[in-house]
Amino acid sequence: MNLKIALLPGDGIGPEVLNQAVKCLHAVEETFNHHFTFKEALVGATAIDRTGNPLPNQTLNLCQEADAVLFGAIGDPKYDNDPSAKVRPEQGLLKLRKELGLFANIRPVQVFPTLLDNSPLKKDIIAGTDFVIYRELTGGIYFGEKKLNEEGTIASDLCEYSEKEISRIAHLAFKAAKNRSGKLTLVDKANVLESSRLWRRVVSKIAESYPEVTLDFLFVDNAAMQIILNPSQFDIILTENMFGDIISDEGSVIGGSIGLLASASVGEQNALFEPIHGSYPQAKGKDIANPIASILSAAMLLEHFGLFEEAMSVREAVDKSLKKGIVTPDLAKKSQYGTNQVGDFIADNIVDED
Amino acid sequence: MNLKIALLPGDGIGPEVLNQAVKCLHAVEETFNHHFTFKEALVGATAIDRTGNPLPNQTLNLCQEADAVLFGAIGDPKYDNDPSAKVRPEQGLLKLRKELGLFANIRPVQVFPTLLDNSPLKKDIIAGTDFVIYRELTGGIYFGEKKLNEEGTIASDLCEYSEKEISRIAHLAFKAAKNRSGKLTLVDKANVLESSRLWRRVVSKIAESYPEVTLDFLFVDNAAMQIILNPSQFDIILTENMFGDIISDEGSVIGGSIGLLASASVGEQNALFEPIHGSYPQAKGKDIANPIASILSAAMLLEHFGLFEEAMSVREAVDKSLKKGIVTPDLAKKSQYGTNQVGDFIADNIVDED
Ligand SMILES: [Mg+2]
Ligand SMILES: [Mg+2]
Repeated sequence: MNLKIALLPGDGIGPEVLNQAVKCLHAVEETFNHHFTFKEALVGATAIDRTGNPLPNQTLNLCQEADAVLFGAIGDPKYDNDPSAKVRPEQGLLKLRKELGLFANIRPVQVFPTLLDNSPLKKDIIAGTDFVIYRELTGGIYFGEKKLNEEGTIASDLCEYSEKEISRIAHLAFKAAKNRSGKLTLVDKANVLESSRLWRRVVSKIAESYPEVTLDFLFVDNAAMQIILNPSQFDIILTENMFGDIISDEGSVIGGSIGLLASASVGEQNALFEPIHGSYPQAKGKDIANPIASILSAAMLLEHFGLFEEAMSVREAVDKSLKKGIVTPDLAKKSQYGTNQVGDFIADNIVDED
Repeated sequence: MNLKIALLPGDGIGPEVLNQAVKCLHAVEETFNHHFTFKEALVGATAIDRTGNPLPNQTLNLCQEADAVLFGAIGDPKYDNDPSAKVRPEQGLLKLRKELGLFANIRPVQVFPTLLDNSPLKKDIIAGTDFVIYRELTGGIYFGEKKLNEEGTIASDLCEYSEKEISRIAHLAFKAAKNRSGKLTLVDKANVLESSRLWRRVVSKIAESYPEVTLDFLFVDNAAMQIILNPSQFDIILTENMFGDIISDEGSVIGGSIGLLASASVGEQNALFEPIHGSYPQAKGKDIANPIASILSAAMLLEHFGLFEEAMSVREAVDKSLKKGIVTPDLAKKSQYGTNQVGDFIADNIVDED
């Protein structure tokens, strides 16, 4: 397969972890005989420093022409600590998501068997947890009309959803459920919210086209409990923007390895893949940053294009590094391995099982 | 002190657990020389069966004239399993909250040292957790304008807050923080929502009148993580209706003893106290229901009227029953103690330490 991949290293540890992901994609190219073209562009604080704009037009154009975007990280304390800053690095990512129409945020909640002890949850509760949250990313209350009366004493936000917005992400989630255990849970608050009732009607209707998938419903307050009490019950969770924000952040910490989690943001024409961790500026350039979340973002990219075997070979190489203890110091205090060595090990262990 | 207390036993195990709470209040009367008047009224399924109305006028009048309402539980499978039922037991409680103007829901998240092993969280994470959530209960998106277009393809809900709605619950929360460790955390999403920004402004302004209290802010998605990662950092959490719904249900399960948790709903003129557990109809009349949540609701009632020493004597008697294993079978499988025996033990152990 030929793929044009835009690389946006961004700030802090972004460039160094992204490099390791690219190494792994090169290994996949060679091992499985694909052809990936990589082109790099500026984003975030780095882009502000050089062009004054966190998302230069050149970067946006590159992303629009690419099949996929592989993203490093964004954010710099220089801007965070300056309340008067008019442009902020984070605006680069928000604008990019908007321009590319990335309406679905996909967040796997995955537990790494060798890291179970890091979980805040007891072992018997967290073991076997493996689910994916599909969060609607461009609608709902975060983007609805905002009002403040003249006296500044009454404020409001509107949560609005259309059938179209619900149905496009629902199809993605049902397709994913079909490829997994076949269970989809819609998280909403349909006992109270009109918008949630629309979600239920639209999703229930779409479910008829996916007879292999079992659909169930869970109120968001109950979901917040179930993620702690019995997280392994879930397979695919589908939900609106704000509930997804809360639930996916809650889900990200139950495995105890938030630094290893990847994510995807998907639109009609394009998709962006990135670690959920930030730019971690204190570690920048020290060869200590953990590259695994970035490498797993590359695995999600491969899966997005149907390259499941290839993605599996990346995941298996990651598991091997975890099992052998070839990891950065954040996972094992006395580890002597740096970002590059871990990346090399994982890339070297990408093999075609057949 | 003289107090008029309305007793609303309700459905399922409601009457039997409420009886134990009343026993304890009688013990407090005698021990500390107070005078409580109890009057009982119908609510819920029991009220529908007898009058056709889940909240008969007589019940509402009794509550309005009382200083406080002690509530059992509500709900009956006969109505839950009948989608055509026009009146539902739960409407009794919703209407009562509305009529009494109960705008603040207060939910302590408490960990019982002898039950730490029941927690889904690891011991070192949950130990020492003791915080209280103040949730706004009558405003926000659950009560805002709901719309559905004619075609049924676009739905919306409005989240609106006024300064007045925010300020009345904020004062309650600040007063509570003053009486505890002096820390108040406002949970919001002020980086995105106009209504959250109003909450921040109003609460920050009120904070100036409570110099003993330290105010900090937490986005709701981060709060959902922190409750799992480091719950003992919290003292008083203040938040709007929907965030409070999610966060307080999440908080209710981290201690592993959800069946023991009490709650209060407070208004300008009146207050209602109830266990957070439901009516548990399967256990009705079997003398196996755990009365502790109901008894702790009575303790919250005492605290509401400034009877802190009296409330402490109830809490200490509860701790004693837990330590000695004088508990119902839900807490210790082989336990021979019934609802009444546990209630008797706790009431008998209410003593004036002075
Ligand atoms: Mg978030
Ligand atoms: Mg709830």
